[in-house]
Amino acid sequence: MDKQKQDQLKKEAAIKAAAMVKPNSVLGVGTGSTVAFFIDALGQRKEKENFSLKHIVTTSNRSKKQLESLGFKVDELADIDQADLTVDGADRVDDNLDGIKGGGGALTLEKNVAVNSKKIVWIVDESKLVHHLGGFALPVEILPISCEQNFKRFEKEGLKPQWRLDENGKRYVTHYGNYIIDLAIDPIPVPDGLADYLDHTVGVVEHGLFLNMCDKVIIAHSDGTIEEKDRA
Amino acid sequence: MDKQKQDQLKKEAAIKAAAMVKPNSVLGVGTGSTVAFFIDALGQRKEKENFSLKHIVTTSNRSKKQLESLGFKVDELADIDQADLTVDGADRVDDNLDGIKGGGGALTLEKNVAVNSKKIVWIVDESKLVHHLGGFALPVEILPISCEQNFKRFEKEGLKPQWRLDENGKRYVTHYGNYIIDLAIDPIPVPDGLADYLDHTVGVVEHGLFLNMCDKVIIAHSDGTIEEKDRA
Repeated sequence: MDKQKQDQLKKEAAIKAAAMVKPNSVLGVGTGSTVAFFIDALGQRKEKENFSLKHIVTTSNRSKKQLESLGFKVDELADIDQADLTVDGADRVDDNLDGIKGGGGALTLEKNVAVNSKKIVWIVDESKLVHHLGGFALPVEILPISCEQNFKRFEKEGLKPQWRLDENGKRYVTHYGNYIIDLAIDPIPVPDGLADYLDHTVGVVEHGLFLNMCDKVIIAHSDGTIEEKDRA
Repeated sequence: MDKQKQDQLKKEAAIKAAAMVKPNSVLGVGTGSTVAFFIDALGQRKEKENFSLKHIVTTSNRSKKQLESLGFKVDELADIDQADLTVDGADRVDDNLDGIKGGGGALTLEKNVAVNSKKIVWIVDESKLVHHLGGFALPVEILPISCEQNFKRFEKEGLKPQWRLDENGKRYVTHYGNYIIDLAIDPIPVPDGLADYLDHTVGVVEHGLFLNMCDKVIIAHSDGTIEEKDRA
């Protein structure tokens, strides 16, 4: 599929998501190419319907700037109680609507926004769909102090750890001053079990398994159809 | 008991702990008034026995300075694989040798050193002993982004959260740029269950429940006896 066709599909999926946003609600906004189309669609609703929101929080500076350029005021998570709806992308989504996120490195902020949202909708194109989680290295944000020990620990456990590097070949540093280890284990045998293990590992700040969180996925298929799938 | 008598007892307990350190081993050193006596005793062994260590890591600048003043070289946790022995204090220790730590605010570093130690010895005076964990608010280090939501969550769960404040009455900021919420629930009904809950709470970096970690406690009793208790 050419890029123009793909963008057109993403745009249609984004418009569907934008239509779900209720006026005067609290909205969480993620990041990514499809989310950028979602923000555009939101801006169009704003113009046409004199549509406003109580609060918007977002997981990236890029989305923040785009929202502000369309006249939306962006708040911090600390300013709200919880979001009524969060719209985000995902790196992989499985048949249960569980996902892997964090390819962009913002998994900690993304998960903190997610767990403080009443409803979560992910917009993805077909390439992100998997039957069982895998096909994408799982990002784990870790404290530098014990990162060497945790890297070896993950190696011993067969999780195939890899340091995430920046454009200069140095260890990528997150917004919170931590490192990211990508676990290349594929597929992920028991996502729930791995999430539990990582939650209990001292030195792990957050990981990219987003389980039992997403309520609806809007999928842009390559055949031109837009599919909506709800958590069973 | 007067302070001089108490210090004498702490010193005796510290000497016992220092005698456990093997030459040319890797040592973890915690912080606190009793640990300061331990470092002194280690310095005395160094002088008398021409005693040296392969590596020393520590959980505070105070201990680091004291160790360096006695001629010990202090390394980072990243420089070692694991410590053969870590000697630290504790805020409370129960009958199972489980403990609460983090009264000084360094719980995250302390726990990272602890889980990377083969053996852990705590030196405490009698006042720190409890049959069941409690008698001391449980410190929880949390990311600022979702701290308001987590404070409310802890309140709803009946955990009696309190912001830790600094000397200026502002929120205390940890070495890692996070806040500390002290949970005043007392006693702690099921420490294992609370630890599990906190490990799974998004936004919690670390908590002060040190369960199944300590191998030996050296207790300075007010009657002048020094007791050693090993994990059953």
